[in-house]
Amino acid sequence: MTGAGLIAIAAAIAVFTGVGAGVGIGLATGKAVEGIARQPEADGKIRNVMLLGAVLAEATAIYGLVVALVLIFLKM
Amino acid sequence: MTGAGLIAIAAAIAVFTGVGAGVGIGLATGKAVEGIARQPEADGKIRNVMLLGAVLAEATAIYGLVVALVLIFLKM
Amino acid sequence: MTGAGLIAIAAAIAVFTGVGAGVGIGLATGKAVEGIARQPEADGKIRNVMLLGAVLAEATAIYGLVVALVLIFLKM
Amino acid sequence: MTGAGLIAIAAAIAVFTGVGAGVGIGLATGKAVEGIARQPEADGKIRNVMLLGAVLAEATAIYGLVVALVLIFLKM
Amino acid sequence: MTGAGLIAIAAAIAVFTGVGAGVGIGLATGKAVEGIARQPEADGKIRNVMLLGAVLAEATAIYGLVVALVLIFLKM
Amino acid sequence: MTGAGLIAIAAAIAVFTGVGAGVGIGLATGKAVEGIARQPEADGKIRNVMLLGAVLAEATAIYGLVVALVLIFLKM
Amino acid sequence: MTGAGLIAIAAAIAVFTGVGAGVGIGLATGKAVEGIARQPEADGKIRNVMLLGAVLAEATAIYGLVVALVLIFLKM
Amino acid sequence: MTGAGLIAIAAAIAVFTGVGAGVGIGLATGKAVEGIARQPEADGKIRNVMLLGAVLAEATAIYGLVVALVLIFLKM
Amino acid sequence: MTGAGLIAIAAAIAVFTGVGAGVGIGLATGKAVEGIARQPEADGKIRNVMLLGAVLAEATAIYGLVVALVLIFLKM
Amino acid sequence: MTGAGLIAIAAAIAVFTGVGAGVGIGLATGKAVEGIARQPEADGKIRNVMLLGAVLAEATAIYGLVVALVLIFLKM
Amino acid sequence: MTGAGLIAIAAAIAVFTGVGAGVGIGLATGKAVEGIARQPEADGKIRNVMLLGAVLAEATAIYGLVVALVLIFLKM
Amino acid sequence: MTGAGLIAIAAAIAVFTGVGAGVGIGLATGKAVEGIARQPEADGKIRNVMLLGAVLAEATAIYGLVVALVLIFLKM
Amino acid sequence: MTGAGLIAIAAAIAVFTGVGAGVGIGLATGKAVEGIARQPEADGKIRNVMLLGAVLAEATAIYGLVVALVLIFLKM
Amino acid sequence: MTGAGLIAIAAAIAVFTGVGAGVGIGLATGKAVEGIARQPEADGKIRNVMLLGAVLAEATAIYGLVVALVLIFLKM
Amino acid sequence: MTGAGLIAIAAAIAVFTGVGAGVGIGLATGKAVEGIARQPEADGKIRNVMLLGAVLAEATAIYGLVVALVLIFLKM
Repeated sequence: MTGAGLIAIAAAIAVFTGVGAGVGIGLATGKAVEGIARQPEADGKIRNVMLLGAVLAEATAIYGLVVALVLIFLKM
Repeated sequence: MTGAGLIAIAAAIAVFTGVGAGVGIGLATGKAVEGIARQPEADGKIRNVMLLGAVLAEATAIYGLVVALVLIFLKM
Repeated sequence: MTGAGLIAIAAAIAVFTGVGAGVGIGLATGKAVEGIARQPEADGKIRNVMLLGAVLAEATAIYGLVVALVLIFLKM
Repeated sequence: MTGAGLIAIAAAIAVFTGVGAGVGIGLATGKAVEGIARQPEADGKIRNVMLLGAVLAEATAIYGLVVALVLIFLKM
Repeated sequence: MTGAGLIAIAAAIAVFTGVGAGVGIGLATGKAVEGIARQPEADGKIRNVMLLGAVLAEATAIYGLVVALVLIFLKM
Repeated sequence: MTGAGLIAIAAAIAVFTGVGAGVGIGLATGKAVEGIARQPEADGKIRNVMLLGAVLAEATAIYGLVVALVLIFLKM
Repeated sequence: MTGAGLIAIAAAIAVFTGVGAGVGIGLATGKAVEGIARQPEADGKIRNVMLLGAVLAEATAIYGLVVALVLIFLKM
Repeated sequence: MTGAGLIAIAAAIAVFTGVGAGVGIGLATGKAVEGIARQPEADGKIRNVMLLGAVLAEATAIYGLVVALVLIFLKM
Repeated sequence: MTGAGLIAIAAAIAVFTGVGAGVGIGLATGKAVEGIARQPEADGKIRNVMLLGAVLAEATAIYGLVVALVLIFLKM
Repeated sequence: MTGAGLIAIAAAIAVFTGVGAGVGIGLATGKAVEGIARQPEADGKIRNVMLLGAVLAEATAIYGLVVALVLIFLKM
Repeated sequence: MTGAGLIAIAAAIAVFTGVGAGVGIGLATGKAVEGIARQPEADGKIRNVMLLGAVLAEATAIYGLVVALVLIFLKM
Repeated sequence: MTGAGLIAIAAAIAVFTGVGAGVGIGLATGKAVEGIARQPEADGKIRNVMLLGAVLAEATAIYGLVVALVLIFLKM
Repeated sequence: MTGAGLIAIAAAIAVFTGVGAGVGIGLATGKAVEGIARQPEADGKIRNVMLLGAVLAEATAIYGLVVALVLIFLKM
Repeated sequence: MTGAGLIAIAAAIAVFTGVGAGVGIGLATGKAVEGIARQPEADGKIRNVMLLGAVLAEATAIYGLVVALVLIFLKM
Repeated sequence: MTGAGLIAIAAAIAVFTGVGAGVGIGLATGKAVEGIARQPEADGKIRNVMLLGAVLAEATAIYGLVVALVLIFLKM
């Protein structure tokens, strides 16, 4: 059935949203470790803010995952 | 039914909007931790502004998620 | 019906406009927190201008959302 | 009807014009907050010029929105 | 009628010309506010030149809008 | 008639030439305001040269507009 | 059966999400080792934050893997 | 007649050559105004050389325009 | 049988995920050797962190390999 | 006749070669005016070398124009 | 038989994974020789770490080669 | 006759090779005039080497022109 | 026979893998000669490490060549 | 005859290889004239090495030309 | 015969591999002449290493040429 194939492709595109978060979190982490190297005693504050941003970015990947799973388990 | 397949693809493209927010929040977080490393005592102000911007960027991902869910649950 | 599928794709492309705002707001927020780190006492002025620009950028995402919702609820 | 589908796609491409304004306003806002951090007492002048440019950029997004709405409500 | 659909797509591509102006005006505004931050007393001259350039760039977006509207109202 | 549709697409591509001028004028204006900020008393000379270049760049957008209008009004 | 082929393609696109994490973790690791070279005694803190970010980025690759495996073993 | 449509597309691609000149002249103008800001008394020499280069770049746009007009008026 | 061909293409796209890890590990290694050149006595710590990150990045390539092998040996 | 349409497209692609010369001459002119601003008394030598290079670059655009005109007037 | 052709294309895409490793190893080697030029006596440590990273990157190319050979010799 | 159309397209792609030379000569000329501005008395040597490189780059454009003319006059 | 044509295309894509190695080795060589210019007496060490990395990058091109030759001589 | 058309396209793609050499020689020439401007008395050595590299790069364009001519004169 | 056409296209793609070597050798040569300008007495060592790298990069172009010639003379 072609319909199922198209929905599978759709689920794949949806979860592919995570590519933005993957690069974005990498950039944020890179700056965070750079910051700790410059100011080691501020590592708690840096880790908190980094975590906050990374979780917000991660959320966009999770939106994609949710849509992908909904498409696979409810509509295929 | 091809119609459902196309709507699923549409939902996937809609949620894919989050890729911009994913990269954007990553960039903002990176600058925020860099700023805290330079000025650790300003971390409260930095965190607030970073959060403000990240939430506004996140909103664009949520618009995409909303359109995706509307397409899946109301139109498919 | 293929027509509904095409309109769904159109709605997805419309809401995808938000990807520009997502990246743009991220860039603006990054510069804002960098500015606060350099000049912590100017954080009120910086936050205001950042908010002003972010809201204008956000508007382009909302235009896309409006067109997407109009297409879905009025034309599909 | 395929015609309506194509017009819907056209409306989506039209409103997608906003992606340029989204990134452009983000860049302008980033430079504006950077400028305020360097010269906090000039924030009024900076805000005015930033607003002027952002409104002109926003206009291109609005042109796209107008064309999209005309296509949807008058031609579909 | 497929003809109307193609003309609608054409109108959308025409108005999409504005994406160049959107980014270009953003770049110009960014440099302008940077300049005012460095030389606040020259803000009148800077605003004038910025406005001059932004209007010329805006013109390219308006050409696209004109072609789009002509296509929609005269040929569709 | 598909012919009219193709000519409309052609007119849109023709006017799309303006995207290069839009970005180019934006870059030139950005440099011009940067120059005025560094040397405010030279703003007349800078404005003249900027205008000269911007008009030459604008010309490429106008070539596109002319071809688009010729296609629409004489050949469609 | 074409359906199975399309689902296989979908699984491949889903696992391809890992390309973002691959580049992102590489960037973060690069900055981390740069930081250790500058501040060797902070290597514990740097390693922790780097690991935290890399695991969050890795998660986006795992989302893709999960969707790929679900598609292959449950739907093909 | 599809032939006329294809020739119209060809004319549009031909005039689109101007996009290179549009960006190129913008870059040259930007450097020229930067140079005048640094050396205001050399503005005559700078304007001459800038004009010389811009006219040569403009020529490529005019070649495209000529081919476009020849295609439209002689072959369509 | 076209199905086998499509699954083979899918396996190839899956293993192609490794391109991200290939570039990412290269970037990380480049920064690591740069760090050792600056601080030769920290080479043990640098090697450990580099290895940690490279293994995490390598994992994304292995996910792709696993999906490719599963597709080839179980589904083709 | 489709043949004439394809030859027209070919002529357009041929003249489009000028886009490289358009950008290249722009870059060269930009550097030339930058050089005159730094060394105004060397403007004769700079103009000569710039003209030499620009003419060589222009030649590539003229090759494209020649091929385009040959295709239009001899083969269409 | 089209099936064999598609599998051959798949093998080619699989081995094409090596392009990432090719660029990545080149970047790492470039940084390594730069490091040796700065600190010639650390060349043993630098060579070891460079080799370690290059082998890990090479592995992604080998995964692609393995998948390509499996596809050619077992499935074609 | 479609054959002639395809050969015309081929001739256009062949002459399009000149786009690389167009940009390359532009870059070389830009560096040459920059060099003369820094060392005006070395302009003879600089012009010779620049001419040598530009002629070699021009050669690639001429190869394309030759192939294009051979295709048009001998094979069409 | 279309099968042979597709396998030939596959062989071409396989050998095209060498483009990554071509650019990568170029980058590495560039850094190596830069390093020798800075530290001429370390040229033996630099040449060794450069050769080591270049051979590893070359390997990815050879994988592609092997797959191409296997496809041509065994499967076509 | 479509076969001749495809071979003509192939010859065009083959000669298009020269675009890499065109840009590469341009970059090398640019660096060479920059080097002569800094060290005018070393111009003989610089010209020799530049010529050596440019000839090697030119060779890739000649490979493409040879393949193009073989395809045109022996196979068309 | 379409088969011959496809094999010709394949030969063209194979020889197109040289574009990577063309750019890569250009980059390496550029760095080599820059190095000689800085350290003219090391030109022998620099030329040797540059030649070594350029030959390795050239090899990837030759692989492509070999595959192209094999395809043309043995399989077409």
